[in-house]
Amino acid sequence: VGPENSAESSAAPKSAAVGFEVSMDGKLRIIRINKPEKKNPFTLKMYLDFAQLLKDAAEDQNTTLVAVTGTGDYFSSGNDLTNFTSFSGSVSEAAEEGKRNLKIFVNSLIDFPKPVIGVVNGPALGIACTILGLMDAVYATDRGWFQTPFSALGQSPEACSSYTFPKLMGSLKANEMLLFNKKITAVEACKLGLVTEVFQDANFQSEVWPKIKEWSELPINSLVYSKQLSRQFDTEILHKVNDAECERLLERWQSEDCMEAIMKFFSKNSK
Amino acid sequence: VGPENSAESSAAPKSAAVGFEVSMDGKLRIIRINKPEKKNPFTLKMYLDFAQLLKDAAEDQNTTLVAVTGTGDYFSSGNDLTNFTSFSGSVSEAAEEGKRNLKIFVNSLIDFPKPVIGVVNGPALGIACTILGLMDAVYATDRGWFQTPFSALGQSPEACSSYTFPKLMGSLKANEMLLFNKKITAVEACKLGLVTEVFQDANFQSEVWPKIKEWSELPINSLVYSKQLSRQFDTEILHKVNDAECERLLERWQSEDCMEAIMKFFSKNSK
Amino acid sequence: VGPENSAESSAAPKSAAVGFEVSMDGKLRIIRINKPEKKNPFTLKMYLDFAQLLKDAAEDQNTTLVAVTGTGDYFSSGNDLTNFTSFSGSVSEAAEEGKRNLKIFVNSLIDFPKPVIGVVNGPALGIACTILGLMDAVYATDRGWFQTPFSALGQSPEACSSYTFPKLMGSLKANEMLLFNKKITAVEACKLGLVTEVFQDANFQSEVWPKIKEWSELPINSLVYSKQLSRQFDTEILHKVNDAECERLLERWQSEDCMEAIMKFFSKNSK
Repeated sequence: VGPENSAESSAAPKSAAVGFEVSMDGKLRIIRINKPEKKNPFTLKMYLDFAQLLKDAAEDQNTTLVAVTGTGDYFSSGNDLTNFTSFSGSVSEAAEEGKRNLKIFVNSLIDFPKPVIGVVNGPALGIACTILGLMDAVYATDRGWFQTPFSALGQSPEACSSYTFPKLMGSLKANEMLLFNKKITAVEACKLGLVTEVFQDANFQSEVWPKIKEWSELPINSLVYSKQLSRQFDTEILHKVNDAECERLLERWQSEDCMEAIMKFFSKNSK
Repeated sequence: VGPENSAESSAAPKSAAVGFEVSMDGKLRIIRINKPEKKNPFTLKMYLDFAQLLKDAAEDQNTTLVAVTGTGDYFSSGNDLTNFTSFSGSVSEAAEEGKRNLKIFVNSLIDFPKPVIGVVNGPALGIACTILGLMDAVYATDRGWFQTPFSALGQSPEACSSYTFPKLMGSLKANEMLLFNKKITAVEACKLGLVTEVFQDANFQSEVWPKIKEWSELPINSLVYSKQLSRQFDTEILHKVNDAECERLLERWQSEDCMEAIMKFFSKNSK
Repeated sequence: VGPENSAESSAAPKSAAVGFEVSMDGKLRIIRINKPEKKNPFTLKMYLDFAQLLKDAAEDQNTTLVAVTGTGDYFSSGNDLTNFTSFSGSVSEAAEEGKRNLKIFVNSLIDFPKPVIGVVNGPALGIACTILGLMDAVYATDRGWFQTPFSALGQSPEACSSYTFPKLMGSLKANEMLLFNKKITAVEACKLGLVTEVFQDANFQSEVWPKIKEWSELPINSLVYSKQLSRQFDTEILHKVNDAECERLLERWQSEDCMEAIMKFFSKNSK
């Protein structure tokens, strides 16, 4: 009975955003990352498009709740590394555009007023993992795993993970992910507070969607005001963290550390 | 050997606060919510009386530690919903009085200088659950359960739970309680950090009280100063959170969301 | 293959700091608390020496990562209580010197820019336990245990534990340690977030060191900048907490509570 099988509203908004599919199921809006053949990576344009999709969701009076999920086996493999290699301009121009789009993308999640729920249907890497810390609940299949290999790629935390991960799991656990590239299972992520609940993969879609659908019928004002109260002291901090992280990534993306790591990655994968 | 059986000080302060029973066991002061036939709900007056009881405890030089518990099967069913229906004045007057009393009640816990321990002898709902986040330790019987059905009642978080719950359990877990009305067991609450330790119901009274009694013999200055240090940056924030939450509830209590939900509750319970 | 067995750099810096042994293994710098016959306690001078060792590590361009461990069965028994009894001057002079040295010691950890990892080879008491909350990762043998008996000794939290412990484990769990002297096992500490991972004692040295060694080969800039980002809002708070805690200890160390507790400790141990 998940949205994959159910009769979704035929009046579902048609998205012009390539790489996403948007649908409505009652008052629940589902944003699906939809490039399964490439493991749902984020291109530079997709950062902006996602921000626009959230803006639409915020403004639509018929939307109470937003769920973000992926098509196929992956939730998302994260930042599309060809963003670095296929850019037509200079390295510094690529870094500048990357920074600008990332900041807008992350701000759209920080400022989104309605509850947003991650429905993590498979592995979540890099930016697809870090954004979970900005959501309001995260449900994951036990087939999923989570990794943010920042230092392995000569980079540094993004999507406010340098703030949300220590807050969720405590600094001594968070640093294994943030500093030391640790890969964790969905069950581990749940113990650490990065996932709200884990489901067996066979039942994932059938158990998660009815629950979320039911919540979308709750009084929207109570949901929005409750989220607002719980974020009231964090929003300002999150914006500062996003700024600082983006500034640092601008430097990192132009560093030798990063270039060497990315070249190593592609040479390894091309063998 | 719990206070229910032990020979308590015959000089125990006699409380004029209807709905509470106060007793001393050495330097341990026990505040018992005492309306077991109604599941220990909080009437409007009880909010003010509880604040006064804490004031007495703070001023009494013979009191080192305060424990809060309930008589009977429930810790407390939370806010007495007849507060809304039996009030003689207008809805807005009822809401104003509710807000005023709630703010004083919550402030009394924020500002209480000595350690206060929740001895949760059964289910803790709504305000009886949220206040646990303001205590210094919480011991629960495994028969207890915990729920804050704010959005189901068209309401929003109180007793600083919009701040303490995410801090205790991480935002991704807290929102299931704060936004989505999740009911959790004592064991789950313990994993989430809302309960310090869970005991088998059969041994609950006999194991918890001697432990707390022993702690009431520790040097009071070390206890008070240690609590002060660990609260030094939170106290100001907690007051702001309390103000914002009370302001929001004033609006919520007068909203259609809330009235519909409460009418539904009473019509369901009267069938 | 731990540093105890491996061929460490023969150019290892020779420490003039009595009570410590410093060695290099590639880019990993190991600071070993080295008074095993006395369970590795901290004398007044060792607080200053440790701060100097961290300064050396920060300045050495060949050091990427620092590990702190103990020689023998204990990580460290904490503050050497003879600091109080063997001091030649007055009680207030001893308290003043204790405060000065403690503040410098704790500040050196707050401000250390590279990752520092606790390799907890046995019990960690008092200051040896509280400093773990200022580290970036903590690995412990399952033979270890942890205790901060502040109120039992008439004292109060130090090394920012009044801030880091509630942040790591939630206030309702932290207070059992901070207020009520609870002793916990390594496995419990790991569940509470005070330890990153626990290892069987038989495999502890052989499993922990290769992992840390590998991390010391990661790009130092990514490590340092990532740590900086995750600490950016905490550093200022941590300094304020350290100041307030030291000020309080200055009072506590001169209090009757503390003197009675310490006399009781020595008379018990001398029987």
